[in-house]
Amino acid sequence: MSCGNLALHTDKYQINMMYAHWMNGSMNEKAVFELFFRKLPFGNGYAVAAGLERVVDYIRNLRFGEEEIAYLSEQEEQYNEAFLQELRRFRFTGDLAAVPEGTIVFPNEPLIRVEARVFEAQLIETAMLNFVNYQTLIATKASRIKQVAGSDALLEFGTRRAQEADAAVWGARASYIAGFHATSNLRAGMLFGIPTKGTHAHAWVQGHDTEEEAFRKYAEVLPDQVTLLVDTYDTLRSGVPNAIRIGHMLEQQGKRMNAIRLDSGDLAYLSQRTRAMLDEAGLPYVQIVASNDLDENIIFNLKAQGAKIDVWGVGTQLITAGDQPSLGGVYKLVAREKDGELVPVIKISGNPEKVSMPGVKEVYRIVNRATGMADGDYIALRHDEAVRRGEAIKLHDPLHPYIHKVITDYKAVPLLQPIFQAGELVYTLPSLAEIRQYHEEQLRLFWPQYLRKLNPEMYRVNSSVEAWQLKLDLIQRYRAQ
Amino acid sequence: MSCGNLALHTDKYQINMMYAHWMNGSMNEKAVFELFFRKLPFGNGYAVAAGLERVVDYIRNLRFGEEEIAYLSEQEEQYNEAFLQELRRFRFTGDLAAVPEGTIVFPNEPLIRVEARVFEAQLIETAMLNFVNYQTLIATKASRIKQVAGSDALLEFGTRRAQEADAAVWGARASYIAGFHATSNLRAGMLFGIPTKGTHAHAWVQGHDTEEEAFRKYAEVLPDQVTLLVDTYDTLRSGVPNAIRIGHMLEQQGKRMNAIRLDSGDLAYLSQRTRAMLDEAGLPYVQIVASNDLDENIIFNLKAQGAKIDVWGVGTQLITAGDQPSLGGVYKLVAREKDGELVPVIKISGNPEKVSMPGVKEVYRIVNRATGMADGDYIALRHDEAVRRGEAIKLHDPLHPYIHKVITDYKAVPLLQPIFQAGELVYTLPSLAEIRQYHEEQLRLFWPQYLRKLNPEMYRVNSSVEAWQLKLDLIQRYRAQ
Repeated sequence: MSCGNLALHTDKYQINMMYAHWMNGSMNEKAVFELFFRKLPFGNGYAVAAGLERVVDYIRNLRFGEEEIAYLSEQEEQYNEAFLQELRRFRFTGDLAAVPEGTIVFPNEPLIRVEARVFEAQLIETAMLNFVNYQTLIATKASRIKQVAGSDALLEFGTRRAQEADAAVWGARASYIAGFHATSNLRAGMLFGIPTKGTHAHAWVQGHDTEEEAFRKYAEVLPDQVTLLVDTYDTLRSGVPNAIRIGHMLEQQGKRMNAIRLDSGDLAYLSQRTRAMLDEAGLPYVQIVASNDLDENIIFNLKAQGAKIDVWGVGTQLITAGDQPSLGGVYKLVAREKDGELVPVIKISGNPEKVSMPGVKEVYRIVNRATGMADGDYIALRHDEAVRRGEAIKLHDPLHPYIHKVITDYKAVPLLQPIFQAGELVYTLPSLAEIRQYHEEQLRLFWPQYLRKLNPEMYRVNSSVEAWQLKLDLIQRYRAQ
Repeated sequence: MSCGNLALHTDKYQINMMYAHWMNGSMNEKAVFELFFRKLPFGNGYAVAAGLERVVDYIRNLRFGEEEIAYLSEQEEQYNEAFLQELRRFRFTGDLAAVPEGTIVFPNEPLIRVEARVFEAQLIETAMLNFVNYQTLIATKASRIKQVAGSDALLEFGTRRAQEADAAVWGARASYIAGFHATSNLRAGMLFGIPTKGTHAHAWVQGHDTEEEAFRKYAEVLPDQVTLLVDTYDTLRSGVPNAIRIGHMLEQQGKRMNAIRLDSGDLAYLSQRTRAMLDEAGLPYVQIVASNDLDENIIFNLKAQGAKIDVWGVGTQLITAGDQPSLGGVYKLVAREKDGELVPVIKISGNPEKVSMPGVKEVYRIVNRATGMADGDYIALRHDEAVRRGEAIKLHDPLHPYIHKVITDYKAVPLLQPIFQAGELVYTLPSLAEIRQYHEEQLRLFWPQYLRKLNPEMYRVNSSVEAWQLKLDLIQRYRAQ
């Protein structure tokens, strides 16, 4: 299985359009595409960008191998040898700018901007959307959970319910970016250096004559990482008392039991009773890990009920983004080369929110110099340098023109960073630890009302007056035709 | 990136338990695990088994490479050289039985049964669940869509919203098993031989001065597969009239346009108007393809409204199983070796539905000889041969003991097939076409009331009286302890 070559990790129509551009002699014309999403998932107030490392790896290695070429030539007789030869020569030679992983992002902001021959820019659409949609979705879900869990430890446990193998590792990585502390998935640990955690399953207990024997045999051979799963038979009558015996046994050896783990039943009640039993037994340091289809709402409610839980193992609902398993990211042509110049283009739609924003754009985070906090994001046409020069800018809401604000004393932080220039990687990929750190810093730019789980305040993302006018002009022009 | 080696596509606790068994001298004891799910997804009346080919490939290639060994040795200092040497020698040497892909399956039936050294049986849990949970989920979702679409053509279009790259290809394959006709994903086409489909995007239209020019340039170079996307600017005023011009142009060349594609707006209204416009223009053979966040409910409603749609492109909601993105499959120890014999084991739980069914089991489909239709599924202990001999069996519902039925004139079809025996593959993997065909035959065994989308009749899955009594006995025994 040619798992390494992702050249055909794309929709057939991309190759058809490449073929048509090649036949029509337009393959070398420049095109500018922007990747963005239109709506925040989960009713959240923000999203967490992720997927760029995977995109970079994909673009760098993007080649049609002989297996891919042979498949295409069998598929369609019109894919003649000259076209296949063109595919063999394929390299990404364009520019790509992107928002770094871990950045807080909002709807309608370009997360990736590609400026390349249309032949290249078209091919990479599907794979980039596939990577960025999933990883951004999971990082955002993980961030919601992190907001609720505060300083509690968070473990990603979702592999068995993840949507196949890639989702397990890239989802684990996205969770770690957003503040999770470890994963159970060893492959994610190996590939990305994420700390891994895990102890034993119910089968370990069932595999011995008694629960106490199972616990003891585990603790004897792995005395430094004893977390005992106590719900195989009866949590309070059997599991916790047996675990307490092991805790005492370990103390006699000068060791300390790490934790017990609750995996079913009423976690609020069971954790309180378990905490009391551990404390009475002189084991106040033994932590309580909870799992069982948790998500941010259940964790929030358990905490409100005074559950005594130190560590949360979150699986299915995180790794699949259970309540909304897709982010609707899209990749739209915003400009194309015509007579040697880039001209803006638009896509009209019966659904007003689907009308695209034409023109090559930059996005800036406007940070208030007095407070150090983000006042809003500002989308301007790339040639518009006013914001870079720090000139007064008008944040205006085109849907509600009476809502506007002129701001002056600000720092404008461009969100898009150059990643590839003329096909060369010009970006130093940060380490995962750096991305995680950067994400934490990003969060500190935002007032808490934008970050809360329920009914967050809407953060301003405004386009410049000029960018908005360009959109209106192009709509008029197409209407007139 | 070591994408080919999936030895660490597992939870850390599996390796910890393997280490503990190795240390305790119990690693070679036999264990029997069964993989099953407890609840049908989407409120459906059945599920469609999928994932076995991936499982077979995984098991055959399951080796710890030096990269994996090095990672494990760095992770935990107690993983000493002798243990790592044991991992280097690791091969699957056990028995594995499974339900073939495409089989109609129900809750609590073993889909996979593993009988192997506990050292091996434990490792493979996570990966098998990851594969089978996702692929069975998507095959089931696709089957629901197929039930509604009838003989209409169904295209899988979900790659850009799939949860990473593996989900795109294995989800496309699962959809094809359940009756989809093609996918847009070329890699899935190459890997599995699934037909692929696709034409052009909005960007193709935006990339030309006019929509008509874009359509014409496409049709000129790919005249045999012209499906034109008509909603870039205005479907009825611009898209369809331009497409009709191309249809006439092609007729002059002795060719026929395939289809037009609607991707936004009111698909019921637009398809009816488009159909009328095409018919009036003398193009009654041009088909209408529709897409835009479709699922079985939207398709059902569009058909009820008389939408004139011939081909359905289904993406996000299928490839992520949007309304329920995970199947809760589990893998439970049902028997273990003790003093050289297999003894049944149980897992108790505060949630009654989570108490496991102990003992090594077989599952039979009971087909009524008079009607040729399935009367129910029957789960018996493996040593119980009565059903194989065709003796009268009692289908009884332990929750409602007054519901029971003795059946005599039946054919009992064992659902579990031997796949590996003593580590050797003894199963001939069917081709994808054969699996798809077999799935169609499976459906014909069931009365329509079990297959309908809404409120299906519940199909009987009963365990033998002996199997049920074993469960009660083991619960009593653990209670008494």
